[in-house]
Amino acid sequence: MERHEVAARSGLAVRLPEGRRLRIITPKGQQAADFFAYRADQVGEWLSPTHTWVTTRSVRPRQGDTFLSRFRRPMADFVEDGAGGVHDMMIAACDQGRYEQFGHRAAHANCSDNLRNAMQRLGHPIEVIPQPVNFFTNTAVEANGALVSPPNPVKPGAYVELLARMDLICVVSSCPFDLQVPGWTINAAGGPSELLIELR
Amino acid sequence: MERHEVAARSGLAVRLPEGRRLRIITPKGQQAADFFAYRADQVGEWLSPTHTWVTTRSVRPRQGDTFLSRFRRPMADFVEDGAGGVHDMMIAACDQGRYEQFGHRAAHANCSDNLRNAMQRLGHPIEVIPQPVNFFTNTAVEANGALVSPPNPVKPGAYVELLARMDLICVVSSCPFDLQVPGWTINAAGGPSELLIELR
Repeated sequence: MERHEVAARSGLAVRLPEGRRLRIITPKGQQAADFFAYRADQVGEWLSPTHTWVTTRSVRPRQGDTFLSRFRRPMADFVEDGAGGVHDMMIAACDQGRYEQFGHRAAHANCSDNLRNAMQRLGHPIEVIPQPVNFFTNTAVEANGALVSPPNPVKPGAYVELLARMDLICVVSSCPFDLQVPGWTINAAGGPSELLIELR
Repeated sequence: MERHEVAARSGLAVRLPEGRRLRIITPKGQQAADFFAYRADQVGEWLSPTHTWVTTRSVRPRQGDTFLSRFRRPMADFVEDGAGGVHDMMIAACDQGRYEQFGHRAAHANCSDNLRNAMQRLGHPIEVIPQPVNFFTNTAVEANGALVSPPNPVKPGAYVELLARMDLICVVSSCPFDLQVPGWTINAAGGPSELLIELR
């Protein structure tokens, strides 16, 4: 088994061959893990939540669901949910502009740069930031269509496990979101924390 | 005023200068209008529902909302809703693969090809199919996260009106979805119909 730490506020890309499993763990809990996946030999094909949920008919990924690519092909199975279903596919990856929307002017670590840098370490330029799967992230859509993000209830040691359905490059980002925005709670109040990933 | 018909199952791209308005009308009602918008002088910037709804905090576009690009910049204001709020931003643009998922084997008109062809008529190759805004499309997210599409209640003559916040290329596709899928009603039972667009 291969194990890596994704430092708080950072990202990491790993190759996951077809048939292997990836476990993502939040050791301290309440830490959003932005997840992206690309077909290893053609990174123009990537995991797409909007193509996934019109097939699963669920905006929240559930154990047993299959994540589809933007070409609607199976990329990964969600084989084990050790986080009680607290996952999101609605929130776009944060980027510098996101922090500026909230009045933050200085450079801020963000999941989009984490993705770009993780992929560049493997030699892949990224032009488009795909919509992520945000594991360990608590959102809900209310009856009137309102998108809300209540406090994050994910416990320390919570995890998810995915099974690769094709050779993949998987990217995990410890979401650096640390602004105090009323009604928009992403991570723990104490700030972002590290994630662990295990290739099984 | 400039007026165009978008034939049933077809797409059309039009330039919309900053400050001008685009009205999209479903003369027969119950016809999904897949809508895409690009920055006219740099089509790498396109309208993004997932970046829009984390700002509006609504998965359904509402009169008064501003549609943002994937760079989180204002592209268009939703200035008038003449369709009673029946709009969607959840459903990925249909493509050949979507119809094949439902067992349809022959070539089928689809919004992704309509977008590509409409943009190619203006000289722009499209590598990525952006998530569309689907006007006149009825979806809801239930409390458990289920994505549902009840029958389409949009009346003949219903319309929406948008105001360009930058020079845009706007693409409208009369969604060709015509399969009878239980619990997944997109267009009128009688099949797709034409749309009208007006540049004001």
